[in-house]
Amino acid sequence: MSQLRRDPITGRWIIVDITNPKRPEDFDLKPQVKKGGVCPFCPGNEKMTPPEVGAKRNRRSKPDTPGWSVRTVPNKFPALRMEGGLDKRGIGLYDMTNGVGAHEVIIETPDHERDMADLTQGELKNVVLQYRARSLDLEKDKRFNYILIFKNHGASAGASLEHTHTQLVALPIVPKRVKEELKGSTNYFSYRERCVFCDMMAQERQDKLRVISENKDFISFCPFVPRFAFETWILPKLHNQNFKSIDNKRAASLAVILKDTLSRLKIVLKDPPYNFIIHTAPIRDGINEEFHWHLEIMPKLTNVAGFEWGSGFYINPTSPELAAKYLREVK
Amino acid sequence: MSQLRRDPITGRWIIVDITNPKRPEDFDLKPQVKKGGVCPFCPGNEKMTPPEVGAKRNRRSKPDTPGWSVRTVPNKFPALRMEGGLDKRGIGLYDMTNGVGAHEVIIETPDHERDMADLTQGELKNVVLQYRARSLDLEKDKRFNYILIFKNHGASAGASLEHTHTQLVALPIVPKRVKEELKGSTNYFSYRERCVFCDMMAQERQDKLRVISENKDFISFCPFVPRFAFETWILPKLHNQNFKSIDNKRAASLAVILKDTLSRLKIVLKDPPYNFIIHTAPIRDGINEEFHWHLEIMPKLTNVAGFEWGSGFYINPTSPELAAKYLREVK
Repeated sequence: MSQLRRDPITGRWIIVDITNPKRPEDFDLKPQVKKGGVCPFCPGNEKMTPPEVGAKRNRRSKPDTPGWSVRTVPNKFPALRMEGGLDKRGIGLYDMTNGVGAHEVIIETPDHERDMADLTQGELKNVVLQYRARSLDLEKDKRFNYILIFKNHGASAGASLEHTHTQLVALPIVPKRVKEELKGSTNYFSYRERCVFCDMMAQERQDKLRVISENKDFISFCPFVPRFAFETWILPKLHNQNFKSIDNKRAASLAVILKDTLSRLKIVLKDPPYNFIIHTAPIRDGINEEFHWHLEIMPKLTNVAGFEWGSGFYINPTSPELAAKYLREVK
Repeated sequence: MSQLRRDPITGRWIIVDITNPKRPEDFDLKPQVKKGGVCPFCPGNEKMTPPEVGAKRNRRSKPDTPGWSVRTVPNKFPALRMEGGLDKRGIGLYDMTNGVGAHEVIIETPDHERDMADLTQGELKNVVLQYRARSLDLEKDKRFNYILIFKNHGASAGASLEHTHTQLVALPIVPKRVKEELKGSTNYFSYRERCVFCDMMAQERQDKLRVISENKDFISFCPFVPRFAFETWILPKLHNQNFKSIDNKRAASLAVILKDTLSRLKIVLKDPPYNFIIHTAPIRDGINEEFHWHLEIMPKLTNVAGFEWGSGFYINPTSPELAAKYLREVK
């Protein structure tokens, strides 16, 4: 069981594990990605995961057996659980609610040996379409207000299993970071009557300094204000607030630029640990036409320390202009 | 040279190094605290640092020679520099300014072998008084609007030198995190006409569940909404927005509870990496009577991953009630 708790000062939410807490002796200060042993994400081991909730499969194969190319299962150790209602309540000054939500794992390939950058464009397209399918399915649940898709690659970026996978969390609350972006893009829109992301893209395409690559539907660039060294964003050229509305053609385009970008990062930074996240508009909660969905890739090359935690400022040792040059020029 | 850059979407600022950037080969993915060799913070090596800007010294000793018990020097590799004006300007959509600021290192003891928890209460009092002295000195510079005092202990918390030290950054801009706390405490105050931190303290003293220890002037507790496992806050009991106004008696009280709290964390978590930060009101920018200065200690036991970066939510595997129990009960 977990609880969602809201900070009375800043409004920040946390998810805290009440029933299976980590005790002092449980923390591993040198986390490693689990290697060897039996992999629960490999074909033939489907019974080691909870029953699948989505998959791209051979027509003749049955759920929870081999024959899949992408497979989604509930997380065996979920941060949030599907059971129960929201049950918001106060404890004196404090606010909390049950940890209701969905936490799923999208296994990107049956092949244990390859990472996301190694997948073919066709395989990656299927991964993107699986993200879309799970988003469309989960948004039917009226308790959820936001769907966050993210990936942790490498131990220091928080990955615990080696077999390449993406995670999806459906939340009863719109996350703080998304709210900040929504507020910022709404403010910009009401001032200029234009989308801040579209304007940013226009400036990047004109300056060319921070662009890594582009195709008909997407652009990949290092943003002018990156929190992390070699941080890279992928934006759809067509203004649209919802990732879930991506069509099949654009899913193929996204696969192309995602493979290209991840491959460049892998070569230049020698397979760095990274996180990526997809920011899309909330499920409900207004129309949010001012928003523009996008994907943010954050390599984890330095430690976030006291200055960052205390200020919310970030110190970045590599300018995005230099990072983009490296990423653009690599063969 | 560094630049301060402002994100046009969320208003987040970063500091980016323009002249001595890190290149792909410069990142060390397994950072370690430098050990062995000549320590620039040890007595006798005072010439290895920039000239000192403050110290607690024997009366007969001269600056930049031995004879000090606490010593403050400018950071040799500062994130921000003292030279020049602010020079705010736009580049198309984007905003930036020169990286003007101060970045100092407070060497807490001449003794290389001890960490902060090992210092005596008297030594720690002098460290606290040095924090105050540097705050009062730097706030005279009209370019600065905020002074952030923070500490990184252990490699994965961002420490690079072993000899125990605190850092201080004077900033031309009030940091985002502080603004969030100011806004939250102001909202609370305008609704209830009370300080949210004072109310929190009252509830903690009543509940007792999350309290670790207290003395006449300070309380140490695990907050109800901790981002990190074993996160611990120290609050002054007397409502006051400014750390810099701490008197000598209360500086001694803070030293007592700080030593007690750091020692408990050190024993229970076996010398964990941690950051601490002091949040105080901005130098200028209104009176901020609603605010209440405090110290936040954040052990670094888990990795911050895609979910946290994407949402601004935190997943905490240890409830503050359990963490406080461990910290309270340790001998």
